[in-house]
Amino acid sequence: MAIEGSSEQTREPRIRLGMVGGGAGAFIGAVHRIAARIDDQFDLIAGALSSSPDKAVASGRDLGLDPSRTYSSYRDMAIREAKLKNGIEAVSIVTPNHVHYDAAKEFLRRGIHVICDKPLTSNLADAKKLKKVADESGALFILTHNYTGYPMVRQAREMVENGELGDIRIVQVEYPQDWLTENIEQSGQKQAAWRTDPSQSGAGGSTGDIGTHAYNLASFVTGLELDSLAADLDSFVEGRRLDDNGHVLLRFKAKGKEKPAKGMLWCSQVAPGHENGLKLRVYGTKGGIEWTQADPNYLWYTPFGDQKRLITRNGAGSGAAAARVSRIPSGHPEGYLEAFATIYTEAARAINARKKGVAVDPAVIYPTVDDGVKGVAFVEACVASSKRNGAWVKL
Amino acid sequence: MAIEGSSEQTREPRIRLGMVGGGAGAFIGAVHRIAARIDDQFDLIAGALSSSPDKAVASGRDLGLDPSRTYSSYRDMAIREAKLKNGIEAVSIVTPNHVHYDAAKEFLRRGIHVICDKPLTSNLADAKKLKKVADESGALFILTHNYTGYPMVRQAREMVENGELGDIRIVQVEYPQDWLTENIEQSGQKQAAWRTDPSQSGAGGSTGDIGTHAYNLASFVTGLELDSLAADLDSFVEGRRLDDNGHVLLRFKAKGKEKPAKGMLWCSQVAPGHENGLKLRVYGTKGGIEWTQADPNYLWYTPFGDQKRLITRNGAGSGAAAARVSRIPSGHPEGYLEAFATIYTEAARAINARKKGVAVDPAVIYPTVDDGVKGVAFVEACVASSKRNGAWVKL
Amino acid sequence: MAIEGSSEQTREPRIRLGMVGGGAGAFIGAVHRIAARIDDQFDLIAGALSSSPDKAVASGRDLGLDPSRTYSSYRDMAIREAKLKNGIEAVSIVTPNHVHYDAAKEFLRRGIHVICDKPLTSNLADAKKLKKVADESGALFILTHNYTGYPMVRQAREMVENGELGDIRIVQVEYPQDWLTENIEQSGQKQAAWRTDPSQSGAGGSTGDIGTHAYNLASFVTGLELDSLAADLDSFVEGRRLDDNGHVLLRFKAKGKEKPAKGMLWCSQVAPGHENGLKLRVYGTKGGIEWTQADPNYLWYTPFGDQKRLITRNGAGSGAAAARVSRIPSGHPEGYLEAFATIYTEAARAINARKKGVAVDPAVIYPTVDDGVKGVAFVEACVASSKRNGAWVKL
Amino acid sequence: MAIEGSSEQTREPRIRLGMVGGGAGAFIGAVHRIAARIDDQFDLIAGALSSSPDKAVASGRDLGLDPSRTYSSYRDMAIREAKLKNGIEAVSIVTPNHVHYDAAKEFLRRGIHVICDKPLTSNLADAKKLKKVADESGALFILTHNYTGYPMVRQAREMVENGELGDIRIVQVEYPQDWLTENIEQSGQKQAAWRTDPSQSGAGGSTGDIGTHAYNLASFVTGLELDSLAADLDSFVEGRRLDDNGHVLLRFKAKGKEKPAKGMLWCSQVAPGHENGLKLRVYGTKGGIEWTQADPNYLWYTPFGDQKRLITRNGAGSGAAAARVSRIPSGHPEGYLEAFATIYTEAARAINARKKGVAVDPAVIYPTVDDGVKGVAFVEACVASSKRNGAWVKL
Repeated sequence: MAIEGSSEQTREPRIRLGMVGGGAGAFIGAVHRIAARIDDQFDLIAGALSSSPDKAVASGRDLGLDPSRTYSSYRDMAIREAKLKNGIEAVSIVTPNHVHYDAAKEFLRRGIHVICDKPLTSNLADAKKLKKVADESGALFILTHNYTGYPMVRQAREMVENGELGDIRIVQVEYPQDWLTENIEQSGQKQAAWRTDPSQSGAGGSTGDIGTHAYNLASFVTGLELDSLAADLDSFVEGRRLDDNGHVLLRFKAKGKEKPAKGMLWCSQVAPGHENGLKLRVYGTKGGIEWTQADPNYLWYTPFGDQKRLITRNGAGSGAAAARVSRIPSGHPEGYLEAFATIYTEAARAINARKKGVAVDPAVIYPTVDDGVKGVAFVEACVASSKRNGAWVKL
Repeated sequence: MAIEGSSEQTREPRIRLGMVGGGAGAFIGAVHRIAARIDDQFDLIAGALSSSPDKAVASGRDLGLDPSRTYSSYRDMAIREAKLKNGIEAVSIVTPNHVHYDAAKEFLRRGIHVICDKPLTSNLADAKKLKKVADESGALFILTHNYTGYPMVRQAREMVENGELGDIRIVQVEYPQDWLTENIEQSGQKQAAWRTDPSQSGAGGSTGDIGTHAYNLASFVTGLELDSLAADLDSFVEGRRLDDNGHVLLRFKAKGKEKPAKGMLWCSQVAPGHENGLKLRVYGTKGGIEWTQADPNYLWYTPFGDQKRLITRNGAGSGAAAARVSRIPSGHPEGYLEAFATIYTEAARAINARKKGVAVDPAVIYPTVDDGVKGVAFVEACVASSKRNGAWVKL
Repeated sequence: MAIEGSSEQTREPRIRLGMVGGGAGAFIGAVHRIAARIDDQFDLIAGALSSSPDKAVASGRDLGLDPSRTYSSYRDMAIREAKLKNGIEAVSIVTPNHVHYDAAKEFLRRGIHVICDKPLTSNLADAKKLKKVADESGALFILTHNYTGYPMVRQAREMVENGELGDIRIVQVEYPQDWLTENIEQSGQKQAAWRTDPSQSGAGGSTGDIGTHAYNLASFVTGLELDSLAADLDSFVEGRRLDDNGHVLLRFKAKGKEKPAKGMLWCSQVAPGHENGLKLRVYGTKGGIEWTQADPNYLWYTPFGDQKRLITRNGAGSGAAAARVSRIPSGHPEGYLEAFATIYTEAARAINARKKGVAVDPAVIYPTVDDGVKGVAFVEACVASSKRNGAWVKL
Repeated sequence: MAIEGSSEQTREPRIRLGMVGGGAGAFIGAVHRIAARIDDQFDLIAGALSSSPDKAVASGRDLGLDPSRTYSSYRDMAIREAKLKNGIEAVSIVTPNHVHYDAAKEFLRRGIHVICDKPLTSNLADAKKLKKVADESGALFILTHNYTGYPMVRQAREMVENGELGDIRIVQVEYPQDWLTENIEQSGQKQAAWRTDPSQSGAGGSTGDIGTHAYNLASFVTGLELDSLAADLDSFVEGRRLDDNGHVLLRFKAKGKEKPAKGMLWCSQVAPGHENGLKLRVYGTKGGIEWTQADPNYLWYTPFGDQKRLITRNGAGSGAAAARVSRIPSGHPEGYLEAFATIYTEAARAINARKKGVAVDPAVIYPTVDDGVKGVAFVEACVASSKRNGAWVKL
């Protein structure tokens, strides 16, 4: 095997990390922990892993945490860790959506950097308040729109920036899944239960859970700003309280003299045959690209009038933006956890720069609280448009 | 090689066929002629291949037609052939859209069956008039929505009919191409010129040329009737007079107590990387299917909760509806011309039954003038909706 | 739809064609007949469709043949047709292998061109005799190694000829099927019965039926001549009399100073999951290509050090060799029957040139009796090598 | 997102790990380190990362090792660590092949478990000696045939064991790459230089580097034992000293009354278009499977006579063997690093059981020194057979 590269970092001391949520059975927590370990930039040393004291203790023990750093209240954790000499420098918030705002606020106010799951909050008012808190704090806010960590997503973005697609005309993005095809929320499936509960998720179901990922990905790659949208949302499953399918037309803002780009976004959790089918296609005056999350090491690119070609991670034609977030050579597939780890590692680079008082390398990219506000605004616009029979709603 | 089936027909005398349009350089004519030959049910014996007398004669000679059966006017052809003892029994009309109505009328009124290219006409008023003429004539009218001739499209339709997908919830259909990414109509490309000319094509550009195929395919497979649509059409190419990209939201009529199905339709002729990307996906309560025109021998099927599986033409799980329009065994790909031939062969079956005064086998399926009217109505609804900023328009 | 090309021929009078074999239930006959019709270069007017007189008559009637041109003996047909003023000019021989030699001889000797199914004969002695007869006759001999008719196979050959792959080093060819995984020959499956019967097929089972196709395809594309082979053949199915799986190592002759190329050939009829999996991969000093029969409109090409790219039939980068055997634009898939038709159309071009006393266009390519001799020699070499425990056998 | 599972372990104290080789610029070392971190079962605390003292120190510092635990001699490391109270419990050996034997010996003799890169050694004599040392030591020996850690490889093995393919008849395995298409070893590419140097790699080039992986994978999945092989090896690149392409016929030992299975193995480093194309196909009396390393979350399975179906990691039909080595739900791709991590985590399970004096869970699987001996025997048999013109050589 010819291993040609690695993103293992030049050594900085590991960043002391805490976690809110993610106790036993809350599986996104495990994803965050693996992601934090892969590039060896963080030490998980504290946790408010559950609001149930017993569960919090047990979960901390399972993870090898010092019992004195295990909390059943994130507020307590924030207060105490902020005072400790070796207290946490950053915290991962991996709870259901409705907790994000309050939890993040506690840490940001005390200067602890926040790495937070998406969507940012369960409603736009909270999102804007959180942005204000984040902006006023000295701390960094990183939103784990993890799909932006895939090397070929970075490659796509770089190609758009370099003008390889020309002026963008069309953006087709979709995120179908099938796991909510039947009403499993009423039979006790925990992941389904909170995602279909307005009080925990907010006004959007599939739009909030995965539509925001699709919207974020399209924005991230194209650099286009959404002007307005028209949405037709459905709850196909009997008794479901939030949308499980969203059909959305997109109008982007024009850039200069170009005609504004248009797009379609489809998110669904009732589309049998799709496990996790996030897919982005972008078409411009000079070419088109296609990327699929399930096969993330491939980017299909067709220069107009020429042959379709396959750009592979770290393979021929794969550029600097992809290389700096890649760990292993082409042909050796990286996956979801590595992309997630990249969000953590970009966060570490920013945090370390902040600690040293130097400017962050401009190549470092991560989703911010602003992206989070946009995501929640997108969800609320979808819901508003759908209620008004698909009328165009400005973002 | 194990060839297990064939659609070569039990011998009926070949049907005497004429053609309107399709002279030298008009390539869809050649497609119709090959399609008419493949299953050996037709003899092309007369033609009004061009309105230019010289070109009509030369084209007839190239095709080996008797000079006395070569016409420069379709009206003359209809009048004379209707009187001949061995005159044509059927005619293929392969001109630009705006000629369809008048040409078809001449033949239908004289009892000559019409096989006509899509879209039916260049406007809805003509379409309705043509339907009236067709209904009142004793002749058959077959519209060459050729994609309905693919065996795996028949298979998909059969599976929906049999309830294998359960109640249909979502229909995603798209037809992207890239050949009009630049303004080739102004540099003399003949195929582009008439397709982007409202006086020849009608009010729709990509919507009329390919959007109608997508709409027809979705209707054909699902059996759903469209209730209303909301469209956002664009002419991205500077100076283009008709849409070259259409984003359309679909609402179907409910069937019984089911929630009505929803859909998205995308047609584009400015999407680099797509040669002829017709693709249909249908999702129901029990499963999902996916079919792509470029790989037509494959139908992907996922029963909800089970593995995705590949149904191949004449392979395991491929049923009667596909088998009766297949010619060769699985693994030996059939293509576009065979699917087109199936439209002709279905037409021949109907014509032969008519000649013998017997009922047509209920398994025989071909697109009719009614489908044609629906297609033109679809185009006009798209244009109307787009002009009203994407308002919902009833069909 | 933008149809940009067509292979419909400038009109020559259709060639009068007879057929030997191919009566009711013998399905390869139907394939030949469709292939002969697609480009409209032949008229099927006579047949010795079965050696059973009743079946011969019935089959002729089904095909609309004049009863006076229906024979139950190919010898009678050859004698009489040769004397008729409008007798057949060419004959298609579509019987089991062991009949090819004797039937072809009767027609060739009388100056009637022969289009013959592969493999050429059931043994090498017959093959060599047939070559002698063909060479001494004034008639043409066309072997239907139909896979050479695929446009992207022509494209691959052209790329090798043009040096786009550099010096060829490695040839990987395989032809797996699964239809003989169980012993269906003993339960009356007719296609299986004769193919597993040494008296009808010859010494090779899968090697003769499909291994010859693989070998022919590799030779056709690369232009390399086989020097020697080492084979390990098996009859995995209990009671089967001929090989159903062949593993073959290939050594080609060197060209000039290059190191000789090496290869692997796998043919199998007991490989579940493969309907008709002919696939060729060729690797040279400058690049590699891959073609799969089931997806015949695609040729994958990787220039060394560059991105893998997709060449589509009539798409970008598809050259003259493919274009001249294509009928419709890229994105509209052609299939097996069109490739088969190309063999017929190339035959027609050669026959027409012969009739006019002019040289055949050098672009015309079809498999000849020499290719047939090589194919039978390949089969016998495989069998000989396998009997000698896989020793290298010179071709 | 619905995350349904995780392999994060119930907490045992992390195992203290050392590393031999893997200093700056030696990239497989980084892979091992990430793999050791992913499931959080190891702490890397010591290293003999380079035989150059300066480089050893610098590399240790980069990795955050305590300087007192940084060595420039693996022997010194073994001696000292064995005496320390908190000395390493296991060591990863990631040097070129010719060092494996001597290094492993030093640790095994002192009761330190060894995790060693493949191939086991550079020659069979060393391999056998190493096996003896390993067997006589109290320590475990884990060979990082990392491809056996992929969940869908485990799934394939489980399906074979459960008889879902019936009796195995055919094994087609290939491992093509293209990075040695040109003579980069003479222009200073370090990875190429040692891999093409007999004194560091042993007698096999591509056969040793990747052929052993292919052979191991085939054995792992099928459970078949190789009886004999016939090989045709080439060094296509001018001046190359070891094979860069290997064509190998395989004969397996019979199991019971079944006919023995046959196979083909192709390894190549001069096949343009293949980055890292390891692929395994297995065919039995009841079905066939196909797995490709570049798309590792997919296993294609065709029950004979039924549709081809896609088994995805943790998706429908994916069983217990895959689930226990999976971290995240289906549709969220795991990759090369996770598969590599599984080898480490299986090693940790075995080491922890050993520490606790309990039996290892029989579900734990990792490649052993015996697999290593077989791999080196395979390489030497290939070389021997090729020298004898492809004669069959017994394993």
